[in-house]
Order: sequence, then structure tokens, then C-alpha cells
Amino acid sequence: MNQFSKEHISVASNASGRKMHVPVYRFKGQAPGPKVYIQSSIHGAEVQGNVVIYHLIEFLKVNPIRGEIVLVPNCNPVGTNIKSGEYTLGRFDPVNGQNWNRGYYYDESMITEFVDSLTGELSLEEIKPIFKEKMKQAIESELNKPWGIGLASRLNLQLQSLALDADIVIDLHNGPVATRHIYVPEYAKESARYFNIPHIIYIPNQFSGALDEATFCHWWTLVDKLSVKFPAQLWETPVEAFTLEMGSQEVIDFESGQYDANGILSYLNHKGFLVESDIEPDNINRYSVFLKDYKILYSQDGGIVEYKVKPGQHVNKGEVIANVLNVDELENENAVSHIYAPDDLIVILHFPSASVLCGTQLYKCFVNYTKL
Amino acid sequence: MNQFSKEHISVASNASGRKMHVPVYRFKGQAPGPKVYIQSSIHGAEVQGNVVIYHLIEFLKVNPIRGEIVLVPNCNPVGTNIKSGEYTLGRFDPVNGQNWNRGYYYDESMITEFVDSLTGELSLEEIKPIFKEKMKQAIESELNKPWGIGLASRLNLQLQSLALDADIVIDLHNGPVATRHIYVPEYAKESARYFNIPHIIYIPNQFSGALDEATFCHWWTLVDKLSVKFPAQLWETPVEAFTLEMGSQEVIDFESGQYDANGILSYLNHKGFLVESDIEPDNINRYSVFLKDYKILYSQDGGIVEYKVKPGQHVNKGEVIANVLNVDELENENAVSHIYAPDDLIVILHFPSASVLCGTQLYKCFVNYTKL
Amino acid sequence: MNQFSKEHISVASNASGRKMHVPVYRFKGQAPGPKVYIQSSIHGAEVQGNVVIYHLIEFLKVNPIRGEIVLVPNCNPVGTNIKSGEYTLGRFDPVNGQNWNRGYYYDESMITEFVDSLTGELSLEEIKPIFKEKMKQAIESELNKPWGIGLASRLNLQLQSLALDADIVIDLHNGPVATRHIYVPEYAKESARYFNIPHIIYIPNQFSGALDEATFCHWWTLVDKLSVKFPAQLWETPVEAFTLEMGSQEVIDFESGQYDANGILSYLNHKGFLVESDIEPDNINRYSVFLKDYKILYSQDGGIVEYKVKPGQHVNKGEVIANVLNVDELENENAVSHIYAPDDLIVILHFPSASVLCGTQLYKCFVNYTKL
Amino acid sequence: MNQFSKEHISVASNASGRKMHVPVYRFKGQAPGPKVYIQSSIHGAEVQGNVVIYHLIEFLKVNPIRGEIVLVPNCNPVGTNIKSGEYTLGRFDPVNGQNWNRGYYYDESMITEFVDSLTGELSLEEIKPIFKEKMKQAIESELNKPWGIGLASRLNLQLQSLALDADIVIDLHNGPVATRHIYVPEYAKESARYFNIPHIIYIPNQFSGALDEATFCHWWTLVDKLSVKFPAQLWETPVEAFTLEMGSQEVIDFESGQYDANGILSYLNHKGFLVESDIEPDNINRYSVFLKDYKILYSQDGGIVEYKVKPGQHVNKGEVIANVLNVDELENENAVSHIYAPDDLIVILHFPSASVLCGTQLYKCFVNYTKL
Repeated sequence: MNQFSKEHISVASNASGRKMHVPVYRFKGQAPGPKVYIQSSIHGAEVQGNVVIYHLIEFLKVNPIRGEIVLVPNCNPVGTNIKSGEYTLGRFDPVNGQNWNRGYYYDESMITEFVDSLTGELSLEEIKPIFKEKMKQAIESELNKPWGIGLASRLNLQLQSLALDADIVIDLHNGPVATRHIYVPEYAKESARYFNIPHIIYIPNQFSGALDEATFCHWWTLVDKLSVKFPAQLWETPVEAFTLEMGSQEVIDFESGQYDANGILSYLNHKGFLVESDIEPDNINRYSVFLKDYKILYSQDGGIVEYKVKPGQHVNKGEVIANVLNVDELENENAVSHIYAPDDLIVILHFPSASVLCGTQLYKCFVNYTKL
Repeated sequence: MNQFSKEHISVASNASGRKMHVPVYRFKGQAPGPKVYIQSSIHGAEVQGNVVIYHLIEFLKVNPIRGEIVLVPNCNPVGTNIKSGEYTLGRFDPVNGQNWNRGYYYDESMITEFVDSLTGELSLEEIKPIFKEKMKQAIESELNKPWGIGLASRLNLQLQSLALDADIVIDLHNGPVATRHIYVPEYAKESARYFNIPHIIYIPNQFSGALDEATFCHWWTLVDKLSVKFPAQLWETPVEAFTLEMGSQEVIDFESGQYDANGILSYLNHKGFLVESDIEPDNINRYSVFLKDYKILYSQDGGIVEYKVKPGQHVNKGEVIANVLNVDELENENAVSHIYAPDDLIVILHFPSASVLCGTQLYKCFVNYTKL
Repeated sequence: MNQFSKEHISVASNASGRKMHVPVYRFKGQAPGPKVYIQSSIHGAEVQGNVVIYHLIEFLKVNPIRGEIVLVPNCNPVGTNIKSGEYTLGRFDPVNGQNWNRGYYYDESMITEFVDSLTGELSLEEIKPIFKEKMKQAIESELNKPWGIGLASRLNLQLQSLALDADIVIDLHNGPVATRHIYVPEYAKESARYFNIPHIIYIPNQFSGALDEATFCHWWTLVDKLSVKFPAQLWETPVEAFTLEMGSQEVIDFESGQYDANGILSYLNHKGFLVESDIEPDNINRYSVFLKDYKILYSQDGGIVEYKVKPGQHVNKGEVIANVLNVDELENENAVSHIYAPDDLIVILHFPSASVLCGTQLYKCFVNYTKL
Repeated sequence: MNQFSKEHISVASNASGRKMHVPVYRFKGQAPGPKVYIQSSIHGAEVQGNVVIYHLIEFLKVNPIRGEIVLVPNCNPVGTNIKSGEYTLGRFDPVNGQNWNRGYYYDESMITEFVDSLTGELSLEEIKPIFKEKMKQAIESELNKPWGIGLASRLNLQLQSLALDADIVIDLHNGPVATRHIYVPEYAKESARYFNIPHIIYIPNQFSGALDEATFCHWWTLVDKLSVKFPAQLWETPVEAFTLEMGSQEVIDFESGQYDANGILSYLNHKGFLVESDIEPDNINRYSVFLKDYKILYSQDGGIVEYKVKPGQHVNKGEVIANVLNVDELENENAVSHIYAPDDLIVILHFPSASVLCGTQLYKCFVNYTKL
């Protein structure tokens, strides 16, 4: 059976001067195979991933794997514990507003230098350990800067170190009020259908600070540069990384957690991670967009909003998707105004509060979507 | 038809030095009748009452009334607009933690002095305007203290001034994740069945700072003291005041708003406020408790909670009502612990976030309840 | 020399399910003597008390005492660690606004019952352990309520348990922008001059939830009731409790900390706690008021405030104590308005931000003060 | 004398559905001259700039100018009014953490296209109005996107529209606990000595989202591209933009405000804006660094910090600049740890709270500085 170990590593210290830890669970199979890294709750209010990891561990305790897997639930001990009112202020550092999922390491110039330094042609398998070592050193060097480093980056880089060795990286998130969706790098389109996620966003090779990007942008860019320098060889990105958004924040549900764990196992099975398993993806409708077609609808005015469309629902251009109550005009025709769908769309998520200022992200939607 | 007027009154000023207003809608019937005061959203995230007032206004525009009604939606311009993360930090003053619904005026000694001052016996009808004038002066005097007054009290007292003349006061609230419930003073039990609210809490003559109490405690205590001093006469409390909790905070829904407006109109019809109306209360099951049997279940430990019981649901003692995930013990038998119902109960509301510290109000429940 | 021990006790658990601890430092002298309890930072941003405790410990490591002392720095592991912007949101529970210093136990009816239960006359020394045991049981019973208890109360009661055995209780606080001041129960006036604190507030036997009150109200009320029941005997309150406010929040300063530690040691020396010490109180001016003369000046309007008076400063009635900038009227005579001292006063503290809404506590002041 | 006008423009609407305004003050001289734009308090807690604008207006009411000036105090009606505890949560949108000073418009590709479109050679004076019109259209187009735009961007772009016509743009800020410093684009070094600001940071042509950059990056890049395309002509950047940081946030002081207004007037005088004025810069020591030498020192561990160095102070490498109290080790040699200056430096600002997590910006410092 798989070999199991658990440790707690210190990733931060608080104003009491005390260490703050994340739990790291590891399972190692008897046969070789892919290395997998899964974390959850880098945004403190997005807690359902912890339940998914619980169900994965239940599975891994009794089912043999090939390769190994590292699971880090509740990976942000700061963001998880900042309350403000009854909710969890878990998306950004309350001190400076920095998003907890935007401080990972990526540096294109490091890759350029690395490819430049390659004198003779090596295979990707030969390059992989050398490149990983480069990344490892770069991250170590960031973490040990003499003047120090900001909290979000510090936390992110320590997690990234844990993920560095993995062939597959999965970052478990939730939306505000949301349906299931997944971010997939464009080169890994084929993998999208192995999860049980009906809404798929293909993302380009562009780094905005998140863990999935910090993972695949390095390899994608490396392979791109290798393809230019050594065009005779066929270079394929050897790593896949995903952000999975499994419904709404501030809520856990064990039954859904089981379902999402199954979806992840289905994908891992497809990648040869399970020794003997017949887990297959569900037969569901899947819709995809390119990132440019995952659009945000902002409120034009402040007010109190009734969201008329549930996440997952398909809407035609021109349909009413929200009503806004204007408390100063309740007796006249301006009491309620309507917001219309600006295009044919699928609603993926909406803002979790009826009370909005102007410029609030009311809805995020798929437009120009394709059925897989 | 009814006479309509609207004004905006300034109740506060902000850090930009600007006035902050509440809208005041008034309808006056051609025939005499009860005076009604309804406000909503003193807690800024509890926004559904604004929709109820919208529907009431729609009704009042076309249906003749007896007496008059004052409606103050969105009555807290400060609390409505404090965001912290995506949610509204609307329950308390963010500066000092003071609950926005605990600063109303009540002073038993004023009532004692007043009753002491009555030399000859008057009828309640004769006493009412004199006593109202006393309250008015007391509130004015609070508002004009030479050293000033705190923001929550200042806001509350200005609203209380608007409500002072009313025979019926209704304060519209929401719970966190909640089913409909209503606070009714014990002497007004009969009125409870005219609303469309299935869960009723009878409250004693005890002032904790809220508007309903600030209203009925004055009159209840007055009548109690009059009954002692003038036992020959039968004294009945001439005013009714309620806090209505209409479901969950952070959400509005026009259809439910229509339903709750109907329930309020049904009660007002019963009180003779509608000239010709056949609005009757719905035929629903109603359950009531005394305040001491409206119990809070606190978390014993922190963790991530799956709430297994929906507000409104009846539960037997010993049933699992919540599961708590322990992220540090996911591989062993402590991964999930259970919370059991400590008694036979009806769940009225639960905490709106899965993430809780120890000592959090997980559930509020009816025990020892009675079916009406 | 004194016997030293240290332990960490768990007082709460957070949303990660982890225990939160407070450190408890104890020194016990070789000779008998008073029992002392000192805590700091129940309000998370009021951190200077931790430095004072550091200096006390430095002293206690090398100077013999009579009796024993328990020191609990940083006694609120929740409030210490809630950031919101750069500052510490440490005065109240961010979930519900409850002040961290208002959940201690006090129940007059328990005292009434206790005194009623005394059949024969005992000495105070005989009564003390029995009464302490009653309090201990009452607090245990609160902490073990089957439905649980709120976080602030839970935290407070555990600290109160630690303080229960003490003859002297000192709770270390800071004001917003403040000068040194101390709350002293009226019966312990004589003790006020032994600290190095120039501003003294005498408080009556009234419980508002704080630790000092929770301590002395029990004994004060007990002694009052004993004096009524057994008037032949002379009853003196055997316990003293103080809240010390040592300057401004959000700041620590080791030099001031040494000074305030000396002041506390001077008082303890006066109480016979130090074996051989010549620590005497400083020869400073001391001013005192009764609680009713410790007044709050609230802002009448919102705006941007220049505080013209430093804490500790004496001001005559009618002097300008603040200027308010009105950003909407900068070109005309309303650009700057003035706030005048409503009375002759000593400023003890002011609000720590220039930006205020109406109803903000601008200043707290002594009026009708007396020089000791 | 100068012609004066004032208006209030609506820049946002809140959750009550109400418009939020900024005041816009304009003075126009009788003679032609430079156009100046000055705003303050885009970060809501940085309020001293409002006092500076007050003093500028006092001056402008009685002293003739050449050209015109637009002054927008308190330019962020949202951030100014978000309280969280006693302080103002004014640096970022509390909904999503977005810094209020990072949403201005800059798009290099627009400039490239513009320069590409120039067929014949024009003078800079001829190009200026055409380029301004381009920027204006681009900003309009951003503001009118059919799906809307986020709140910080919306607010920023409306302010940028007001600033677009100006030759001189000054954005008034404060640091946390800070001494005076100013950000100056490298090409405008000569202007630095005309303000009364002792600490100067030269910034390169790099856009990070702030107003000063949004202003000068457009013109700097334009001039760079024109120089390449039309090398025969000498192109000079026709606009100057600065961020002035005038001491600490959360405080106003009229005397300092007068001093800083004088410094700005001295600079404007140098630019020919004042008709007859002898205002000269003060004779003070001025130190400058390039942006790369304006360094942040982060905390390595959490704890309670005593800041030993005041902003403005010069420190040698190796000196103790902070002490950190460790509340769990008060009796042993780990009670207090020291933080040492990693280099010779001038402290410009420090964190405004003693309580810090690891990864907090303790100090920002000049290293490798030059005396002007």
C-alpha cells in the first residue's frame, strides 16, 4: 500500500511572535509515476477544497498509487483567521490589500538566461532536473533576501517550493456565489474533459501571480524558447497546472466534496496515477471559453441588487439579469431599475452581497463559449 | 385617496463633512385611524426590509387607509455603506463595535416620576399625549447634550423621534442565514397570528436597547405603574411594537418581499388600518417560545463547519446538526467531529460562514416551543 | 530567591481548529504575603503593558518578594492578531463587536444568596476562602454551560479564574492617544498615590463588565451586605483592583515601560510585597475625579480634525481645543470651524484619527478635578 | 485678480444608490501661463494634503497668477469614509484590496500607434493638443466600456480626466509614520530643489498605476519615441508630475500645511505661475536616491516592535533600529531581539503599529543617497 507521512511546516509568524503552520500530507506509491501537488484555501474563505482533500486522503489511504502526492489543506494560516463581521476576510492581506494568490515567483529573464546557457542539445528529461534546481535556487534566493520579503510573497514562495517538484499542480479555490469552473492552460485542453467541471477557461502563457501560472508559465516559456533554439526536436510542456473553483466560498459540503474528489481522481487516473481504478469522468455538458471571453459585468450605479440568474444558467442577450432597488425613489418609476445581459452568456458567478457600490463585479460570465 | 409626501432628513455627517440622509415616506388616509411606523435596515446588511417597504408603498399608492403611516427604508446611512471584503459590516459601528440597534432611549425613572406627578386620575387617552410629550422632550434633551452623544445613539434617537407618535412600530430585520421569525411583546400575543411568520418569540418587559423594546417598554411600564397607582381602572398597553426577521441578510428577493408586505398588511388590516381590504393571514403552522427558550448554541472549538440543518427545520435531541472538519487530522479518526442537538428544537438561524472560532453562535433555536 | 514557573494555557481555538495560548508567568516568594495578578493587552492594540510586564519580570528575577505574583502578558491571542489596514482591530470581537473587556463574571444575586446562607457570624478571613470557592464554582459553571458561551466571555472567564485568588489585580491598558491615568475603586483612594500616575478616576461599585470591576464589585458588595447583616463587626474590602492606562495604543517604549513598572512596584512595596525595597512613588502632581466627571466630548459634525490639545494638558473653558476642516467650503469663512472647551478641563486622551464622523469621541477629559 | 469657480462632480455612487462627489476648485489668472492640477487624499487616511490645499486657496484668493490651477481636495469620497476601528481604511478598496492609487490609465501601444500615425514632422506645441485629445478619448472609452469598469479605475480615470490638460500635476499623499519626501521623474531632477522637501526619489519611466506616472509616462514615452523617429529635432518632456508625501497619515496640522503650501508655491513660482512673488525655496539639506535605492526593510518574524529611529534620521550600518518583544520568552535571553540597519541609511518612514506579522514593511529607507 502507499506510504504515508504528515508534517507541519512553519510558514509565517504572527503578532504574538508565534509560528503559524500548514499541514503537509504525503502519500507515496510503490510504483513510480507522476508527482502531484494539491493545495486548498490560499484564499481563506474558500474552504471547500479542504473537504475535497479530506476525501482524497480517504481514498489514498486504501487505494494504491503510482508516483506520489503532496496535499496541503488550509495552506494560508493568516487569511483563514481574519474575521471582519461574520465573514472571513481571506482574499487579501488586511494590512495592505495584497491578494494572497498573486505573490508566486516567475521570472522570464531567468528562463532566457537558462536557455542561453544550454550549449549542446539535451533531452527534456535531462533538462528537467537542472531547470527545477534553477527555480529552486531562485525561490530560495527570494526568500532569503537580506532586506526581507512581504508576507504574501513569503507565504506563496514557501508553498511554491513544495509544489516545485510536481508534474501536476492543482490549486483548489471557490468563487463568491459560483458554479464549478476550472482554469486550464491552453496547451492542456485535452485534460479539461477528465475533471467533472462543466465550465472551462483556457488561459494563455501570461503570468499574473497565481500558483497555476507560476507553475505552467515557467515550463511553457521554457519549451517555447527551446523550440526556437532547437527546432529539430519536438518539445512538449511536461507539467500541468490548474485552478479549480468548486462552487461558493464560506460554505463546506461533504457530499459535493466527494464529487469533486472523484473528478480529480478521474483526471489523475487518466494520467496513470492510480494503480487499478475504473474512475471515469462523468458524462456532463462541458463549455469552454478563452480567457478574453470570461467577462466581468460591473455595476454602473450603486444600489441594492436582486441577482436573477443562478451560476450555471444560460441567458440570452437582453434578458433581465438583475434588479436594482433605489431606496430614495420607492414611490415612482425609478424605484426598480433593470440590468440586462449585454450578450448571450453563461453566468459563472455573482457578487455575494446585495449591497453594491458602482464599479462592483456583479457577474462573471462566459461569452462566445463552445460546447466541448 | 391617501395623501403622500416624501422628505429626506439628515441624521448624521461623515468624515468628508457631508450630511447623510434617510428617506421618509408618509401616507395619510382620509379617515382617522392608527398611526404606523415602519423602518428597515438599521443593520446595514439586512436589506430585505427595503423591498418589503417598496411593496407596501406600491399598495399604499392605490389602496385607501385609515390613519397614517411613516416608512423609513435604509434607515442607517452609515452601516449600509461599510464594506469589508465583499460583505457589509452593518451590525455595529466599525469604530467602536456598538450595535446599531442598541442605542434607543428608555429610562424607567422618567416613567416613575411621570406617574408620581399624576395627582388626579386621567384616562389613558388623556395621558397618552402628555406622556408622548415627556418622551419627546427626554429624547430631545439627549440629542442636545452639551458634550454631545455617540453616533449609534444619535442615529437611533432621531429615528425614535419619528416613531414616537405611532401606535404600531415595526422594525424590519434579517438574520444571518435565517427563516422568518418575529419578536412580539408578551402582552400582544394575540397579534402574532396576523403576520405570515411561522416562528414567534414572546419577549418580556426588559429593555436591551432595541427599537421595539424602546417603544413598548415605555408603555408597558407606564401601564404597570398606572395599574398599581390606580387599580380601579383597567389599563391596557396602547402601543404594539415588533421586530420582524424576514430571512437572510445580504440578499434581496422581490417575491418574498411581496409575501412579507402582505403579512404586514394582514396585521394592519386586523388593526383597522385598511379601509376596505380582505387581506387575511395565511393558514400556516406557527410556533412560539418565550425569550428564555430561544437558545444560542455556541461552538466549543474552532474549525470548518458544515451546517446540516436548514433554518425552519425541526430536529430531535441527539441528531447531528453540524460536522466540523479538522484540517490537521485529516488522515485519522479526528478528521470530522459531530455536533449534536442538545434538545428537541427548531433551527431558526445559523452562522453565515463555515469558518468559526470557538465561542461562535452556530445556531439559534427554539426549544420547549408551542404550536399556536 | 523567588521560585519561578511558566506555563502556556489554551484559552481559545481558531478557525484552523488550533489552540490559542496565553503565557502565564509565576513568581513565588519564600515568605508569605499578598497574592498579585497582573495582565496586559486584553485589548489587542494596547501593547505597552507587555513591556511593563517584561520589566517587572526583570525585577522579580533578582528581588525577593513576599507572597506570589501571576503575570499574563498578551492575554488576548485573538484580538492581538486581527489586522485591518496597518492597525490592530483589538478592542472588540470582529465578528460581533463585543468589547474584549466586557465579558467578565459578576452576579449580585450570587452574593445575596451567599450572605443569606451565612447563619453564624464568621470573620472576613474565614469567609474569604468560602466566597472564593463560590465564585470559582460560578465561573466554572458559566464556562461549562451545555449550550456553550460566547468567545469574549469565554476568554474573560478563563483569565478571571487565574485572577480569582489574588488580593491585588492590575489590568494594563492604553488609551488611543493618551496620557497616563488609572481607575481606582472609591474605597481604595489611599492607594492611588503609590503609583506614578498623575490622573486618577475614582469608580463606584457598578459593574460594566471589566476585570477590575468584576474583581472589586464582588468583594465590595459582599462587604456592604455583611455590614448590613452583621453591623457589629467592621468589614473592610480585602481586595484591590485597578485598570492602569499607560499612554497610547499601537506603540511600545522600553523606557516608559521601566517607569511604569517602577510605579507598580512602588504600590506593591507599599502593600508589603517586596522583602527589602526602598522604591517610593515619584513626587508628581496627581489629579483625581469621580467617574461622573470623566467626560466624553463627542463631535457634533463629521470632518477632518486638528487636535490642538495634548493629553495631560490643562485647558480653560472656551479655549479652542480642535479645528475642523471642511473640504467643501475651503474658499469661504466655513473652511475651518473651531471646537471650544465646554468647561475647565484636563485632556486625558483624544481620538487617534483626524477623520471623524459626527458622534465620535473626540476627547475624554477631567472636569471638576481635585489636586491630591 | 484671479477668476474663481467651484463645482462638485459626481465620481461614484454608494450602496444607498447615492452620488458621491468631489469638490473641484479652479482659479484662472488674467495672464496666460502654466496649467496646474493638484489633488489630495486619494488614500483616505492621508489627509494633510487637504490642509495644504486650504492654504493654497487662501493664497490664490489674494495673489494674481498666470495660467490656471485646478485643486481637488479629498478626491476619494469612498476611501475617506471607510472606518475599521478608529482608523481610516483608506489605502485600498475594502471589497477587493485594490490600491486606490493604481487604477489610472496608461497604454504604451496607444503612444506607439500615435507616433506611427505622424507622417510629417510637427513641433511639440502642435503635437500636444492632438495627443491630449487621444488620451482624452482613450480614457472616455475606458469609462464607457459596455461591460463597465471597476471602482478604483473609475474613480482614478475621472480624476485623470481633470488632470489631463495640466502641465504640472501634484498628487498630495502622506506616509504611515513618515518624514517629508517627494517622487520626481528622473528628467525633472532640476525641479526637486524648488520644493521644501528634504528627501527626493528619482523615478524612471515605468508605469505602476499611480497618477504621477500616468501623467509623465505618457509624455516621457512620447518624447522618447519622437526622438527616435525625428532625431533632428530636440524633444523635451513638456509636463511635470510629482507625488508629494508630507509626513504622517491620520493627522492634520495647519502650521505644517502652511509650510508645505509655501514649498509648492515656491516651485510654481519658479515655473512662472505667480505674477509677482518672491517666494523662494528654503535653504535646507536635500538628499536624493534613485528608486532602486529606496528600500523596504521587512520583518523577519512577527512580534511587538519598538521603532528606535525617527523618520528623517540618518543611521549607520549595524546600529539597532528596532527592538522586538517576544511575549512568550520574557524571563530569558530571547525576551528582546534587535533589528540592525543593513546599510548606512536615512529612515523615511516606518510602520504605524507596534504589532507586526512577519513580512511587514517595518521601515522604508534611502541607501546610497546623494546630498544635492
